[in-house]
Amino acid sequence: MAPSELTPSAAPPVARLIEAFHRLPGIGPKSAQRLTYHLIRMPQEEAEELASAILSVKERVVLCDTCANLAESAECTICGDLQRDQTQICIVEEPLDVVAIERARVYSGLYHVLHGVISPVNGIGPNDLKLRELLERLRDGTVKEVIVATNPNLEGEATAMYIQQLISPLGVAITRLARGLPSGSDIEYADDSTLAHALESRTEIAGRQDAGTE
Amino acid sequence: MAPSELTPSAAPPVARLIEAFHRLPGIGPKSAQRLTYHLIRMPQEEAEELASAILSVKERVVLCDTCANLAESAECTICGDLQRDQTQICIVEEPLDVVAIERARVYSGLYHVLHGVISPVNGIGPNDLKLRELLERLRDGTVKEVIVATNPNLEGEATAMYIQQLISPLGVAITRLARGLPSGSDIEYADDSTLAHALESRTEIAGRQDAGTE
Repeated sequence: MAPSELTPSAAPPVARLIEAFHRLPGIGPKSAQRLTYHLIRMPQEEAEELASAILSVKERVVLCDTCANLAESAECTICGDLQRDQTQICIVEEPLDVVAIERARVYSGLYHVLHGVISPVNGIGPNDLKLRELLERLRDGTVKEVIVATNPNLEGEATAMYIQQLISPLGVAITRLARGLPSGSDIEYADDSTLAHALESRTEIAGRQDAGTE
Repeated sequence: MAPSELTPSAAPPVARLIEAFHRLPGIGPKSAQRLTYHLIRMPQEEAEELASAILSVKERVVLCDTCANLAESAECTICGDLQRDQTQICIVEEPLDVVAIERARVYSGLYHVLHGVISPVNGIGPNDLKLRELLERLRDGTVKEVIVATNPNLEGEATAMYIQQLISPLGVAITRLARGLPSGSDIEYADDSTLAHALESRTEIAGRQDAGTE
């Protein structure tokens, strides 16, 4: 259903905002309407703040020259932090993954954001990802370990495999995030693949094996 | 979880936009992040269009002096359309309800938007709704029927009852939208209240009773 069908009686500025919201991911025609009517009733300053935040993000946010994470200058805050472990690079698909891993507070190395995964279906090949930049970073031998943190799904696995083949000649250690049951989950509802990984990678309780990054 | 917790490494303009999105209804911290990162990758013109649509809606959209529906001038397009039946007023809670009823294409009368329902829990009383304006419209005797189309839930019903008591001295016909099974639904999954209404208001198949607005 096109948003215009939903707004036969709506004034043009209303229809225009509904359509602009509807173009965003995960916002259907109904949510777009709801957001628009909310905005109409919102205090003027709040609406102005939203509009100006949108423009400011487009003006000021760029990609870090080194790791392709979001940044406000040529270097992001993580690459600019010399306290961080310069011998580890964690490869992720999207900037949101950096945020998620930082939130876990167990990793203090650097990142490299691919901005996608290899996906022949969507016409995305290795050249569309930030892989040249990754190889450049590995060239001087400072980095000792590359943690491949692409998503544990088909495309993420294929990308991880490709990266492994690409950088294994460089002699750097290549690791992948552990697969298993997520914290707080329920075995009853775990899918086959997760359970298979959890069983295959089971750890001894007494004399616990730990190959983590801690 | 506050959005700031989600963005320890995000650049300030990013955090600012995530927070602005998060303030909108139905957008949680995760969706706010996703929208923000989408906006960063969006073409400049699309982002500018969204920002300008937001500002334009605040600048140009007002409430109709007569029916309180959304309008671009003192009179909305529906009140300004003299082809419409001036003897019927359909009372709805929100402007979105006008859009929904217009979409059904069976009603050609006027509307009156209450902008809420009576809700003691949320501190909303009759004086917070556009009821004075409704009484004003009924005074000259042009309107013969008032269709109370508040939502079929507790607050909507209470508001409908209040309106009925308020305007019954004026001698205008007061109707309420029919209750029953929604089109395309499944009796197996219908709730008790819906089924009770559907049974109580059952209609004869041969010699169909019809008190509708057609």
